[in-house]
Amino acid sequence: MPRFAYVNGQYRRHNEAAVHIEDRGYQFADGIYEVVTVMNNKLIDEEGHLDRLERSLKELQIAMPMSRQVFKMVSRELARRNGLDNGLIYMQVTRGVAPRNHAFPAANVPPAVVMTTKRMNFNKMKKFTEGVSVITIPDQRWERRDIKTVALLPNCLGKQKATEAGSYEAWQVDGDGYITEGTSSNAWILSKDKKLITRPLSNDILHGITRRTVLQLAAEEGIEVEERAFTVDEAYDALEAYATSATSFVTPIVRIDDKVLGNGKPGHFGQKLLAAYTDYAEGAGAS
Amino acid sequence: MPRFAYVNGQYRRHNEAAVHIEDRGYQFADGIYEVVTVMNNKLIDEEGHLDRLERSLKELQIAMPMSRQVFKMVSRELARRNGLDNGLIYMQVTRGVAPRNHAFPAANVPPAVVMTTKRMNFNKMKKFTEGVSVITIPDQRWERRDIKTVALLPNCLGKQKATEAGSYEAWQVDGDGYITEGTSSNAWILSKDKKLITRPLSNDILHGITRRTVLQLAAEEGIEVEERAFTVDEAYDALEAYATSATSFVTPIVRIDDKVLGNGKPGHFGQKLLAAYTDYAEGAGAS
Repeated sequence: MPRFAYVNGQYRRHNEAAVHIEDRGYQFADGIYEVVTVMNNKLIDEEGHLDRLERSLKELQIAMPMSRQVFKMVSRELARRNGLDNGLIYMQVTRGVAPRNHAFPAANVPPAVVMTTKRMNFNKMKKFTEGVSVITIPDQRWERRDIKTVALLPNCLGKQKATEAGSYEAWQVDGDGYITEGTSSNAWILSKDKKLITRPLSNDILHGITRRTVLQLAAEEGIEVEERAFTVDEAYDALEAYATSATSFVTPIVRIDDKVLGNGKPGHFGQKLLAAYTDYAEGAGAS
Repeated sequence: MPRFAYVNGQYRRHNEAAVHIEDRGYQFADGIYEVVTVMNNKLIDEEGHLDRLERSLKELQIAMPMSRQVFKMVSRELARRNGLDNGLIYMQVTRGVAPRNHAFPAANVPPAVVMTTKRMNFNKMKKFTEGVSVITIPDQRWERRDIKTVALLPNCLGKQKATEAGSYEAWQVDGDGYITEGTSSNAWILSKDKKLITRPLSNDILHGITRRTVLQLAAEEGIEVEERAFTVDEAYDALEAYATSATSFVTPIVRIDDKVLGNGKPGHFGQKLLAAYTDYAEGAGAS
């Protein structure tokens, strides 16, 4: 089946889908993105993702390229054309095409929009049943990690290090020894006294949509939550640990660097949260 | 005259020059660039720029997409096709096109190359005769500013602030109150005791090719040089100040924030350095 991409108002064959070389996304990383998961033809937390898309654009003073309603329509039409039942919808908005100049172009330059899809089979993912490992690396990123920009080079370098170490993710550590987050997921631990700990929202981390949902679900499950920064040593000493993101759901972490957590298998609390998230995704969170 | 761009082995009409939407430069800022100035049909410091291009690629583990000799050939052919006598040649290399995934793609994915040109008339630039102003802003960038990557979003935001303030450039200030550099130029001051001061090379700043040349020229002119970090207050108190880059040459700065330097006109030392640089560009530095 031919795959399609949406590029600035048109559905293009994916292999021919292109943007101009002076799109500011290409020359300056001057743009933002979102990833929305599709499960059984339903979009998970779509409103939350569109809220964040609008927020990221606003922080960068990029205009909304089209209405939320059109984002929703295009998401569904692209999923339909690509036969996407399960997987993700990727959407990217940049400041548009203009002669290269660091400062913003004239106000009449329209933002550029690209959307693609990717099929995934969430049922068969070993990461949920067997767990994954993470490594820790210094956090080298810029100071506005709350904006979901395409300036992802440090994240790519970190993820590559994780991949080379045979790990799922790299947890980034700030100058004070506290973990900020993964390169494409938020970081969580469950302490020995069964408190669920994750870093509070600030400019230091991405304001994860899945993170927010998991916080709600944890409360509903009666799990005590502490939103605070935690150190690498606290993480080594944790009972359980997780990575959350649109496509990680609540992925259990069973090893951090060389330190095996518990018995090296996904723990009870994580499985409870993952089940709660999957239920949520199939029900209340779906649209 | 139609303008051409070089894109992955072919000369394309500039207005039709495009890259695939999954070029990692577009989705991840996973690439690097160089800008080489052309004066009277000669390329200034071409070897230095190609040295840095190779270094940036090496730091990111991206292969050289073609030999230095081919970069040189394409630079000249593109300049010829575009009738470029004076201006700049822009070259960008990214990790290539691959299905979106933070970690690097397979080793057989070829890097992508884009080259463009832009005409400029350096003779008529008021910035050299009247000087410019700069503002100071917090340095929000990542920790590897020595790599000339296209992850330029923070630089764009800074330059935009400068533009909105009616200024030429924004000097970025680190957490300790020391100036790192401009958003697209290195930062210099001349202290009251006539020492030329610029921040030493490290991961904190771009290793400017023009910076290096100006250091040599200053020594030849008998100007005492101190490579050390300087504070905003030192800059306010300076006799003169300059911005250097491939297209700034040695641009005199006559105001920093609200603080006018000297009599508000380009100073003696700066004019000497600018003249020396122009001579160099027309002679020893040209190829």
